[in-house]
Amino acid sequence: MQDLDPQGLLKEVLAQMAHTPDARLREVTAAAVRHLHGFAQEVKLTPDEWLAGIAFLTAVGQACTPYRQEFILLSDVLGLSRLVNLMHDAEGRETAGTETSLLGPFFRDKAPVFPLGGSIAVHKTGGEEICLFGQITDAAGRPLPNAWIDVWQTDAEGLYDLQANDATVMDMRGRFQADAEGRYHLRTVKPIGYSIPMDGPVGAFVHRQNRHGKRPAHIHVLVAAEGHRELVTALYFADDPNVDSDTVFGVSSSLVVEAAMGVPGTPRPDLPSLRYDFRLSRRAAGETGGRVGADPSQILPAAE
Amino acid sequence: MQDLDPQGLLKEVLAQMAHTPDARLREVTAAAVRHLHGFAQEVKLTPDEWLAGIAFLTAVGQACTPYRQEFILLSDVLGLSRLVNLMHDAEGRETAGTETSLLGPFFRDKAPVFPLGGSIAVHKTGGEEICLFGQITDAAGRPLPNAWIDVWQTDAEGLYDLQANDATVMDMRGRFQADAEGRYHLRTVKPIGYSIPMDGPVGAFVHRQNRHGKRPAHIHVLVAAEGHRELVTALYFADDPNVDSDTVFGVSSSLVVEAAMGVPGTPRPDLPSLRYDFRLSRRAAGETGGRVGADPSQILPAAE
Repeated sequence: MQDLDPQGLLKEVLAQMAHTPDARLREVTAAAVRHLHGFAQEVKLTPDEWLAGIAFLTAVGQACTPYRQEFILLSDVLGLSRLVNLMHDAEGRETAGTETSLLGPFFRDKAPVFPLGGSIAVHKTGGEEICLFGQITDAAGRPLPNAWIDVWQTDAEGLYDLQANDATVMDMRGRFQADAEGRYHLRTVKPIGYSIPMDGPVGAFVHRQNRHGKRPAHIHVLVAAEGHRELVTALYFADDPNVDSDTVFGVSSSLVVEAAMGVPGTPRPDLPSLRYDFRLSRRAAGETGGRVGADPSQILPAAE
Repeated sequence: MQDLDPQGLLKEVLAQMAHTPDARLREVTAAAVRHLHGFAQEVKLTPDEWLAGIAFLTAVGQACTPYRQEFILLSDVLGLSRLVNLMHDAEGRETAGTETSLLGPFFRDKAPVFPLGGSIAVHKTGGEEICLFGQITDAAGRPLPNAWIDVWQTDAEGLYDLQANDATVMDMRGRFQADAEGRYHLRTVKPIGYSIPMDGPVGAFVHRQNRHGKRPAHIHVLVAAEGHRELVTALYFADDPNVDSDTVFGVSSSLVVEAAMGVPGTPRPDLPSLRYDFRLSRRAAGETGGRVGADPSQILPAAE
């Protein structure tokens, strides 16, 4: 034990952690400690501010339920989720797959399966009906026969099914199996933009930052084919006023779309259509297929 | 919206936060975001690791109760609490007050008041009785008449009263008012070292780091006098085997003590005694008196 200054303290903390058997845990933890101390020193964090930070993180943790992951929301609004996505995409960049986007908190396993051409708008059918179609290929453009595509989105009022009164009902989501050429087509209604949950600690934080807290209208997509990296992405509508200021930084220009009449090749010329072809990267050897923002129920207390 | 790389993303996140009205919140948040992104980029955080981090922070938040502050414990084992203490002390360094140490999670308001010379070991009287005495002064050595000193510690089995079966009982803690010369003396039993709570997510983390998770034996002290900065510190026993490897980095050499027979000036020559004089820094103008690790009940859900 010595009379420590901040540099000496950091050395002592790292020394105590230097015997972590798992080399990767040791590396990640050491970097986290260096940045945490660097942050506190840079801003000269005061005791009152430290306590406010503890209180905030505690409130975020306590706001998590089997149906709400407030820490993922915090990661989203700080741009961390997008950063992890970007780095993960770059790992597979040589294969030039479709860009990824955030999974978000509303994905549900075991959505209903529909035949090609079916509509995911079963209960809430209001809004402008559109057709989404295209082809699922590998990064070189070779069709992936019988690939699966999951889509989910808000209804035309900006709500996911999980936000409705009866969360046992699945709506505005579905699974489709592409044909032997990897082609898919489905119907939905045009989603609208919405606010992130503003009634919790993360919402209060965003509010104190004078941010609008909104996400531009989008359709979530998860595409899977044997031997390929699962693609988690979303399509964003160009006519949404917040397409350039997404609160969770999910938008890339390659994911911005519009639905229009007269799109060549649409199986539904009677509807505004949008074509999007998804390109899947090959899964690397040993890759676990980890999904950014995997089903939060895995990491939350079980529902009662 | 652009096609972002990590640098472009960071710029966009900071731009969205640039309109935070509170200048200090803007500064602290911007630094936090820069370090968070810097950390993730430095270690190339993967989606699986990101999810493990979310799960860990969620578990820490969910482990907090009205009687347990797991985020403060996390801050402690990462050395952050000590760093905030060090920086706070340095702010008042010109006045050379006694060094501070961690408040820890076991402080309680409204401990019983004893007369000078009384013993805080009321229920658990086992262990070696010792006498703690000294003088409370300002940084220049001028006595602070009628200053208050709070002490709290484990019993001779290494447990705080809050860890006993009946948490309504206060024991091994008490308040004393110094005399007109700022002199105090009290009796207690020698505390022993103990483990931080190892049954929660922070304990599991420390275990994975191969750290012993122990704190050396110590007596917590909080000293208060009108117009002076409240002093939160602790006295550590030199003969504890972990005095050089405290899991929460609380020890400074100036706070290491031993109890011995024949200490000059002891009011109890019949007991092993230790003398410690506390020097309080003057409170700066506008200082709120924020306490590192203030009563956690302020930032936790109310007890049921």
